[in-house]
Amino acid sequence: MGGPELEQLIALLARLPGLGPRSARRAALRLLQQPETRLLPLAAAMQNAARAVKTCRVCGNLDSADPCSVCTDPSRENGLICVVESVGDLWAMDRAGIYRGLYHVLGGVLSALAGTGPDALNWPALMRRIESSRPSATPVTEVILALGATVDGATTAHWLAEQLRPMGVSVTRLAQGIPIGGALDVLDDGTLAAAMRARRSA
Amino acid sequence: MGGPELEQLIALLARLPGLGPRSARRAALRLLQQPETRLLPLAAAMQNAARAVKTCRVCGNLDSADPCSVCTDPSRENGLICVVESVGDLWAMDRAGIYRGLYHVLGGVLSALAGTGPDALNWPALMRRIESSRPSATPVTEVILALGATVDGATTAHWLAEQLRPMGVSVTRLAQGIPIGGALDVLDDGTLAAAMRARRSA
Ligand SMILES: [Zn+2]
Ligand SMILES: [Zn+2]
Repeated sequence: MGGPELEQLIALLARLPGLGPRSARRAALRLLQQPETRLLPLAAAMQNAARAVKTCRVCGNLDSADPCSVCTDPSRENGLICVVESVGDLWAMDRAGIYRGLYHVLGGVLSALAGTGPDALNWPALMRRIESSRPSATPVTEVILALGATVDGATTAHWLAEQLRPMGVSVTRLAQGIPIGGALDVLDDGTLAAAMRARRSA
Repeated sequence: MGGPELEQLIALLARLPGLGPRSARRAALRLLQQPETRLLPLAAAMQNAARAVKTCRVCGNLDSADPCSVCTDPSRENGLICVVESVGDLWAMDRAGIYRGLYHVLGGVLSALAGTGPDALNWPALMRRIESSRPSATPVTEVILALGATVDGATTAHWLAEQLRPMGVSVTRLAQGIPIGGALDVLDDGTLAAAMRARRSA
């Protein structure tokens, strides 16, 4: 229905998180009814973002600046690093407005089922960040593990705490407030705030 | 957060039906994590669709062919025209698989509130289609008004039936099965099938 170009657009839209086949069809038709004001601007925004947005070489965030605007924000406490699984989790945590330190995106969690081992995670860079901060005015003193309260998240937090302990930094993790089995980036800000306030030694 | 290009992408994604600000953010980050395999192909699909897809000059459907693939389908009954409000409604009706005639997209319904009068609707073209079918082997004998069961939909059906009556065609409308206040393109196929079977004279 509608020809191959329209079918291809609907198929790709349907793969977006939050859109199913039916809503993808509605979205495609809506966009096509205003190609000049809606469809082409969205296509251009995608190409602009693909060209401009990079992975921050320091923390793994996505931003058009590298290092990202979080890493270069002079108002942040450079002695604190919050470790998150994904960029979405970083954004969710930062939007909650309860934490003003730096971040580190792990890029996943350990998973026996998915075959994700330590090699697949961005943790050696975290070690180097901590190491290289020592001669500075604000060495890293605390690493907060903000991983989801899933089995894999808890396993990863435990494993990462073991790696970090010899570095002589305080290692804490979010505790109270994260529902068991819950992903971080769908939580409300209040839950994240409670979990941050009640963080405990890992 | 993320820079102007990423913010612009999120803002435009958030205007898609079915996506809110939060799911637009998740979608943008997901796409940006695989720019070559996900983001750029979607942008290209949008540009291809914008270039290829046209409004069918006969019925108002969206398709890369003009006249559209419905209008030129030799297996359809050319003597039947089903009038719908939007292209989304046309697709919903056709997906239900209970009707094998032609369509006509009205492009809206009469609305005092929205200030939509007859001039804004694609109905003179419907009159011309009926008129020009008379010398053919399959003149239009029935027009089915498949408009939503809203006040505006019912008003429009009543008004359009008045316009069609002098043309000497049978005018029917969907009746049983459409919930009051319901939009057509969110209904399940069974409801549409029941409404089509129980259609009555308008
Ligand atoms: Zn950064
Ligand atoms: Zn057509």
